Amino acid sequence: MSSTVGQVIRCRAAVAWEAGKPLVMEEVEVAPPQANEVRVKILFTSLCHTDVYFWEAKGQNPLFPRIYGHEAGGIVESVGEGVTDLKPGDHVLPVFTGECKECAHCKSEESNMCDLLRINTDRGVMLNDGKSRFSINGKPIYHFVGTSTFSEYTVIHVGCLAKINPLAPLDKVCVLSCGISTGLGATLNVAKPAKGSTVAVFGLGAVGLAAAEGARIAGASRIIGVDLNSSRFEEAKKFGATEFVNPKDYNKPVQEVIAEMTNGGVDRSVECTGHIDAMISAFECVHDGWGVAVLVGVPHKDAVFKTHPMNLLNERTLKGTFFGNYKPRSDLPSVVEKYMSKELEVEKFITHTVPFSEINKAFEYMLRGEGLRCIIRMEE
Amino acid sequence: MSSTVGQVIRCRAAVAWEAGKPLVMEEVEVAPPQANEVRVKILFTSLCHTDVYFWEAKGQNPLFPRIYGHEAGGIVESVGEGVTDLKPGDHVLPVFTGECKECAHCKSEESNMCDLLRINTDRGVMLNDGKSRFSINGKPIYHFVGTSTFSEYTVIHVGCLAKINPLAPLDKVCVLSCGISTGLGATLNVAKPAKGSTVAVFGLGAVGLAAAEGARIAGASRIIGVDLNSSRFEEAKKFGATEFVNPKDYNKPVQEVIAEMTNGGVDRSVECTGHIDAMISAFECVHDGWGVAVLVGVPHKDAVFKTHPMNLLNERTLKGTFFGNYKPRSDLPSVVEKYMSKELEVEKFITHTVPFSEINKAFEYMLRGEGLRCIIRMEE
Repeated sequence: MSSTVGQVIRCRAAVAWEAGKPLVMEEVEVAPPQANEVRVKILFTSLCHTDVYFWEAKGQNPLFPRIYGHEAGGIVESVGEGVTDLKPGDHVLPVFTGECKECAHCKSEESNMCDLLRINTDRGVMLNDGKSRFSINGKPIYHFVGTSTFSEYTVIHVGCLAKINPLAPLDKVCVLSCGISTGLGATLNVAKPAKGSTVAVFGLGAVGLAAAEGARIAGASRIIGVDLNSSRFEEAKKFGATEFVNPKDYNKPVQEVIAEMTNGGVDRSVECTGHIDAMISAFECVHDGWGVAVLVGVPHKDAVFKTHPMNLLNERTLKGTFFGNYKPRSDLPSVVEKYMSKELEVEKFITHTVPFSEINKAFEYMLRGEGLRCIIRMEE
Repeated sequence: MSSTVGQVIRCRAAVAWEAGKPLVMEEVEVAPPQANEVRVKILFTSLCHTDVYFWEAKGQNPLFPRIYGHEAGGIVESVGEGVTDLKPGDHVLPVFTGECKECAHCKSEESNMCDLLRINTDRGVMLNDGKSRFSINGKPIYHFVGTSTFSEYTVIHVGCLAKINPLAPLDKVCVLSCGISTGLGATLNVAKPAKGSTVAVFGLGAVGLAAAEGARIAGASRIIGVDLNSSRFEEAKKFGATEFVNPKDYNKPVQEVIAEMTNGGVDRSVECTGHIDAMISAFECVHDGWGVAVLVGVPHKDAVFKTHPMNLLNERTLKGTFFGNYKPRSDLPSVVEKYMSKELEVEKFITHTVPFSEINKAFEYMLRGEGLRCIIRMEE
């Protein structure tokens, strides 16, 4: 048993002291895990738009100082009371949402929106005692979505940890703990395109490309990438995209352009931008009779989805998904296995790597729209 | 072979000469069926809101004189060139939409929106030659949705006729050719409630009650009827409704009322009014994580469906259906069998019967909101 069990661990963490200001590498104290909690040594983490969105704090209540980070891979250091599913040494992916296995959602075959552990971006403390496990000289530092992986050690509710194959390389599969699984699952679990079908993907960032990857894996014959930035089209070919549409190139709605390209509409569409106009286009570009549109991107809080109800009555389906409908503990291990069996290609999502001390570079890449995923190595 | 084969038949028909004016019983000439057409002796027909809507001609191009009627049961009198699926003497239900069995929709397992024979309320003639088969002294009388069953004989495209079990009583199963199947199929084929689940049905007219009947057959444990007219609640119990909500009785949106009654929302909802506010409520009253809302009612042409996209992203599904997703020729015979096996109860939908000569009474019942279905007997 590690000598750190039951002790406060002092380690490095990248702390956000203020909205939009570079993270500062600090020595933090990480308290031992309490009931149903697990302390995890993070080995690799990556940066997702959601970290940047909440770090910028433009649209929500600011909560600082805070430790961001939620895409990661690590190894269990110690477990709190009542934790039986995990033990020290297990390899895990932290997830920003959880699976208590006891609520109506966890018991439903269809839902992954756990009542107890569903994402909560406003909460900066642990559920067990309403307090943070992080501090600097006794002053608490807030958690972020229950994961806070921009720290060498972090404390996470057991329901937010997926135990994975210990042979899986954590520097690769860490990206499966959020964005890639979100896009992949939106296609494979929700849109479910048949082999040979046509799929439109709106937004060719990491999530959209993962949705395209899902369509490729499902055997779609045409994968139409839609993005306002044509420079993304070349990269998208690696993810199976066969055609591209930039809505700026047309003086008619993009749903009409796609309907003309596909003899009435695509079989499936997946919306990964979160822009309301793209959501409406993604719905209206699916074929009547059987088309299914899946919304993934998170919209502005004042956005309103509008369409003529005949678009629905003509037998189109509109669905939303959260984390690709994957249940974190039950389903994520199988996504890792898809990578291990070479069905899912993860390397192509990883465009940058930096040591932990240079984590602010990862923010710069993302703010400049450069690359897809930047892996942050905790060991320098 | 009947002596009428190949001959013009003179018979009675109830002709609408003007919008909203009582039908007039006339002697009409019914031409023999052309290629892919069938001449049918109608034995029983019933009146559906769609007949009344187009007879009133308030919202669409008027097309008069016209013979309405599309819910009916009859017997094949003769068939035109190329018709191999039906022969004289076969019992059939005419359907306002068709199944050519050759287009992409007919070949899809999911769609029933046939490219060739999909409902067309503007067309008053037959597809084969663009002309009517009805006339009075040589002056053509328009068809309605390819069926025109308010006539002792009518000519119908073979793709709009379901061949049914000859033992099925046509005075009962005639109501399965439109509204009842629409509501029933919306629940059984599209909403697909699990046994023991909760279902809300908006609108307790014949279609909504058929949707409730579908929920009853599926084994739903709670069926919540929603209607602005509380007098419909007693009747609805016969169709399985267990609870009732009249939105007028509350000073908050009905979706909130239903969510409170059901610990967060119903598992499934079916909207059968066509009013846009009810459509939005029907969607927003389903449970997050797994709720499915199905739209059946046809909206006003200027209606706009509006909702916050988070309602979708929280894993709700919104679907529309047309004719309960039944393929007319392939699936309707099995609905008749559901009646024959006593799984589906049809008698309770039939509240009135009149002889053909009194067809205008059926219009009066419907305009007064009395009863559900009025059967019109062609033989006095």
